[in-house]
Amino acid sequence: MTTAGEPVPGLDLPQRTLLGPGPSNVHPRVLRALSLPCVGHLDPAFLEVMNGTAALLRRVFETRNRLAMAVSGTGSAGMEAALVNFIEPGDTVIVGVNGLFGERMADIVERAGGRPVRIEAPWGEPLDPDDVARALAANPGVRAVAAVHAETSTGVLQPLEPLARLCREHEALFIVDAVTSLGGTEVKVDEWGLDVVYSGAQKCLSCPPGLAPLTAGDRAVEVLLGRKTKVRSWYLDLPMVISYWGAERFYHHTAPVNMIYALYEALRLVLEEGLEARFARHRLNGRALLAGVAAMGLEPFAREGYRIPMLLSVKVPEGVDDLTVRRELLARANVEIGGGLGPTRGRIWRIGLLGHSSRRENVLLVLAALEAALNRQGRRVEPGAALAAAEAVYAAAAGAAG
Amino acid sequence: MTTAGEPVPGLDLPQRTLLGPGPSNVHPRVLRALSLPCVGHLDPAFLEVMNGTAALLRRVFETRNRLAMAVSGTGSAGMEAALVNFIEPGDTVIVGVNGLFGERMADIVERAGGRPVRIEAPWGEPLDPDDVARALAANPGVRAVAAVHAETSTGVLQPLEPLARLCREHEALFIVDAVTSLGGTEVKVDEWGLDVVYSGAQKCLSCPPGLAPLTAGDRAVEVLLGRKTKVRSWYLDLPMVISYWGAERFYHHTAPVNMIYALYEALRLVLEEGLEARFARHRLNGRALLAGVAAMGLEPFAREGYRIPMLLSVKVPEGVDDLTVRRELLARANVEIGGGLGPTRGRIWRIGLLGHSSRRENVLLVLAALEAALNRQGRRVEPGAALAAAEAVYAAAAGAAG
Repeated sequence: MTTAGEPVPGLDLPQRTLLGPGPSNVHPRVLRALSLPCVGHLDPAFLEVMNGTAALLRRVFETRNRLAMAVSGTGSAGMEAALVNFIEPGDTVIVGVNGLFGERMADIVERAGGRPVRIEAPWGEPLDPDDVARALAANPGVRAVAAVHAETSTGVLQPLEPLARLCREHEALFIVDAVTSLGGTEVKVDEWGLDVVYSGAQKCLSCPPGLAPLTAGDRAVEVLLGRKTKVRSWYLDLPMVISYWGAERFYHHTAPVNMIYALYEALRLVLEEGLEARFARHRLNGRALLAGVAAMGLEPFAREGYRIPMLLSVKVPEGVDDLTVRRELLARANVEIGGGLGPTRGRIWRIGLLGHSSRRENVLLVLAALEAALNRQGRRVEPGAALAAAEAVYAAAAGAAG
Repeated sequence: MTTAGEPVPGLDLPQRTLLGPGPSNVHPRVLRALSLPCVGHLDPAFLEVMNGTAALLRRVFETRNRLAMAVSGTGSAGMEAALVNFIEPGDTVIVGVNGLFGERMADIVERAGGRPVRIEAPWGEPLDPDDVARALAANPGVRAVAAVHAETSTGVLQPLEPLARLCREHEALFIVDAVTSLGGTEVKVDEWGLDVVYSGAQKCLSCPPGLAPLTAGDRAVEVLLGRKTKVRSWYLDLPMVISYWGAERFYHHTAPVNMIYALYEALRLVLEEGLEARFARHRLNGRALLAGVAAMGLEPFAREGYRIPMLLSVKVPEGVDDLTVRRELLARANVEIGGGLGPTRGRIWRIGLLGHSSRRENVLLVLAALEAALNRQGRRVEPGAALAAAEAVYAAAAGAAG
């Protein structure tokens, strides 16, 4: 079926500027860490790296939780781990659904044997805490409330503190999806009172995809250890995973060694920059981008006041073909932006300035490329207006700082 | 909680010769591929890489199956995917248990709602096909038989063809763990009639851990598509994963982009060498290692005739402390070998010559290091006897070839 010496073509990959909803561009230092020599998953040197990674994760999550680790899978594995471990068959879970990732949470709750109670808001709108309060009151003994912090599918940022307070009042766990927010905007696990929080490596942490940071507080760990049934997933069974990440070092599965190197280095970059400085950078570039697209006459999709600072969703203008524009950006400028998903397919673009991708030059590049693409579609935009608007934001910020 | 510019220590990793049960040493070309720039998981360039990876996997699995892909997780995620997708609550699954990984399969079957019927053999022994035949006869309507090809925990290689024939006769699926065997010894999916086969990236394929190659034939896909209930795992839901890997390219989860690059390059190396040549290399180095340890007076653990060619399990000699020896190998020679697991903890060593680690120089190194460590433990072994025995194997092979 195969013969020796048969040549197989090598990889030949383009160099993209990644300005979609993730992955974001990976810092060269992270790529270097990724390609360090692999050691064994129980090597003392690797266990040190795991400890170090957990310590850095605690700082980025702003938590004192003992449990902080990386799930061996992408963000969705983090979501599944954060749900299946805390839900037993028959448990009621209130799930906020205002986008694709909320839908996914509800689906996972059902597969885990739970009973999802859906709190809905239209795509582009935040959840209403009053709806959650009503659902909590109507369903005594709710196990958990699950919500998405930054709904990547719509560009909506959900204020978490009001929901966290409600969860405390009703003794429900609060399970939060911080896939797109962690490392780009505040995720104050302890201060806000979040019980279980998971993220993804490839968004504002700018690590390649393949790991899902996760933390859980004491209330959550208590639920975990008090389970009456086995977790439905063996691979994501946290009590077992914890004893590998914890002091016991009990072999569970082989950790993705090189990916953990990369995550460590990515977290190191986050902390070297400092969380405050990093969030400010994300906000500033996000504001410049918004000013630029507005100057082109594009309209934001997510409701004002609830927009993710570093992931802008904008409506595709009437008469413009979504896919043509995105293909042109990729072909002519090596720029990737995201399209809509599900009900917003073809109707919105999602432009991300996540982590290492959040750079002034990327703002200018995507505005220039988008302006050219829109012009080619016969939608005349005033030449240079977008760039001028963005530059004005930077100038104002520099003025305010100086 | 964190301040800007705070320094965090960088990674400083030792360079190990990995001669345990995996991960194995990664070829520099694979590390280079791993650190290529990340592109989007829906980028046409990446979809090409996915297609290419699937095509290479088919050749390594020696199959014409349409379904060939990499599960986004380590080998255990592959195991879970191979089981939960084909089992519905109430299904009976016959599970061969003669080591840790068989135990794990039985555990996963239960968590998926299935009823595992265990066929046992002592650790170090293969399963008896007659036991499987009896279990099939006693349990009409069995959904599947699950068995481990190379039981990494014991060193036993299970002949698969007799079991595959039984499965056909009883219209049960045959689900096979080829985590340690794929790329190191024959895994003839089509010729042998294996329905679902999964592996791990970090064994004989010598890619860093984090991906689980998987293939399934038409009979299995039919079962998959005829399911009456949702798969209990969302993350590992194959019907959805297939539509991402397949022609539809429907977004499911973000693939671990850089890990897929690495797997592609690792598979490329396998096929450049050629499967036959590669298996012969694994057999030869395995024979040399066995001759060497035998000359030191060490006794193999797995039954003769059923030994994994490239993963040797040997008994820790009376009066020798397992952990001391392994720590010394690591500290003095940067050599990692594996210890026992569960009932064989402290009682056996597992020396792997997997993939890129299967090299003559590694055989000589581990024999020399082991000889020195045993001497330090007061167990006198004849100086140089092990090396001479290994060299004799190489000389005989060269003589036979020339």
